[in-house]
Amino acid sequence: MDFTIDSATPAVSASFEATPDPRQREILQMLTRHLHDFVREASPTIEEWNSAIAFLTDVGKWCSDTRQEFILLSDVLGVSMLVETINGQDGGTESTVLGPFHMTESPRRMLGDSIDMIGGSRTCVMSGQVRSTSGRPLAGAAVDVWQCTEDGFYDVQQPDVQPPGNGRGLFTTDEDGRYRFRTVVPSHYPIPTDGPVGRLLAATRRHPYRPAHVHFLVSADGHEEVTTHAFVAGSAYTDSDAVFAVKKQLLVDFADCADSGLAAAYGVEAPFVLAEFDIVLQEQA
Amino acid sequence: MDFTIDSATPAVSASFEATPDPRQREILQMLTRHLHDFVREASPTIEEWNSAIAFLTDVGKWCSDTRQEFILLSDVLGVSMLVETINGQDGGTESTVLGPFHMTESPRRMLGDSIDMIGGSRTCVMSGQVRSTSGRPLAGAAVDVWQCTEDGFYDVQQPDVQPPGNGRGLFTTDEDGRYRFRTVVPSHYPIPTDGPVGRLLAATRRHPYRPAHVHFLVSADGHEEVTTHAFVAGSAYTDSDAVFAVKKQLLVDFADCADSGLAAAYGVEAPFVLAEFDIVLQEQA
Repeated sequence: MDFTIDSATPAVSASFEATPDPRQREILQMLTRHLHDFVREASPTIEEWNSAIAFLTDVGKWCSDTRQEFILLSDVLGVSMLVETINGQDGGTESTVLGPFHMTESPRRMLGDSIDMIGGSRTCVMSGQVRSTSGRPLAGAAVDVWQCTEDGFYDVQQPDVQPPGNGRGLFTTDEDGRYRFRTVVPSHYPIPTDGPVGRLLAATRRHPYRPAHVHFLVSADGHEEVTTHAFVAGSAYTDSDAVFAVKKQLLVDFADCADSGLAAAYGVEAPFVLAEFDIVLQEQA
Repeated sequence: MDFTIDSATPAVSASFEATPDPRQREILQMLTRHLHDFVREASPTIEEWNSAIAFLTDVGKWCSDTRQEFILLSDVLGVSMLVETINGQDGGTESTVLGPFHMTESPRRMLGDSIDMIGGSRTCVMSGQVRSTSGRPLAGAAVDVWQCTEDGFYDVQQPDVQPPGNGRGLFTTDEDGRYRFRTVVPSHYPIPTDGPVGRLLAATRRHPYRPAHVHFLVSADGHEEVTTHAFVAGSAYTDSDAVFAVKKQLLVDFADCADSGLAAAYGVEAPFVLAEFDIVLQEQA
């Protein structure tokens, strides 16, 4: 009944004691403890608390069917990556964030098809093998890929320039667990900066860029699904991704290749860019 | 460059290192540490993280010119009271939350006037002295009061029933630092439950009620302003205020009084309810 700086946390924690769902109760009591610890340490003025309320309210206002500013906030605070990593696969390919551009379904394509529908300047081939942690090749695995153009835009960001499905493809691995497709080398690009998260980055002198990458969402029967990226090794911002998603294991060499035999095998002209990216899935327990 | 569960916090913290405003840098680095500690301890699934994002987005959507759901969330988590208490006055009357109903200006009234413009069933007199921590009575202090009706509604919640300014008054203390006004005894009432914060309370089996109280915002030259409540001692929910705002010092006896001399002095008929509430302001340094 007597609220003090010290009694606050036990009082609020006790208020959640009757929560029927034990996991919800546990999370809310942990939240209370960490949130109160933060407030006690930061010791905000009333004006600072008002600013925090106004900021969160503005983040909410920016959310729409095509924009998720709270996910963006979670991303730039490293929370999305932390959650993704906590839920990652032991022994399998490391995971990274899903990102906001997997909103549309990727078109089904045949192995070797191009996902570049607008004609980029440098032809790139991506290929690799999907394997189980036991080493067994996984035939019939689903490999969903999406990426931006050489100019750094996804199809949904440029509906007047790119047809829907440009830069996207859903492939099925062959009997050796292998996939291959033609594309362009993606560019680095900024996360949206016109909202409150962009203002936060500007106020803290952080740049908004993500290093170049191709998204992968890979699944196979009896295995854990993995959400990850193949990052273009040597791309700008691999050391300072605005959303902290880079893991060393995911840096992939996008190498110049002049081998006309390989070019013919992939149905492209030499020289071209070749990126090899194998994916390992954890067997389900 | 290699994001791991352990490298996450130093990496995000370092990203804020170039923030020009040292206080903003400090707060963001503290937030990062406490938020990451919470995530590591709670170890949320992707689905739980999605639920948290959806909840915060919904809280943002409910905010409008007349509704502040993020303040309500801060209130029910005890954060508003913690911030208020951290910023409270040493030695003066203890502070408590401002609440969402101080949106309109209180009408200026003369000492002894009634703030009840609709005719309640039980006449109540509130009076008291505003003093400095040194004990000196503070003449000319501004005493801004607002409260709900005997049915538990503020004027702004019932524009068809209550005239604007009902239950509100801005008074100036007399040469002895004293104020007095006529009113009704307020009722306990629920915080708004039709939004996401209401759903949170329901899911955790918490009631939404606040014990009966009269709001005070008191200021005087050369002194720190205080935002507080006079709680009706013995009201329902004084032991379980939904926003944790009760402090023992602020429980006030709203006593039945049959003294016809006193009644005459206050311009009311005996029997009436008398509540005495003195306020002590800290001298500015």
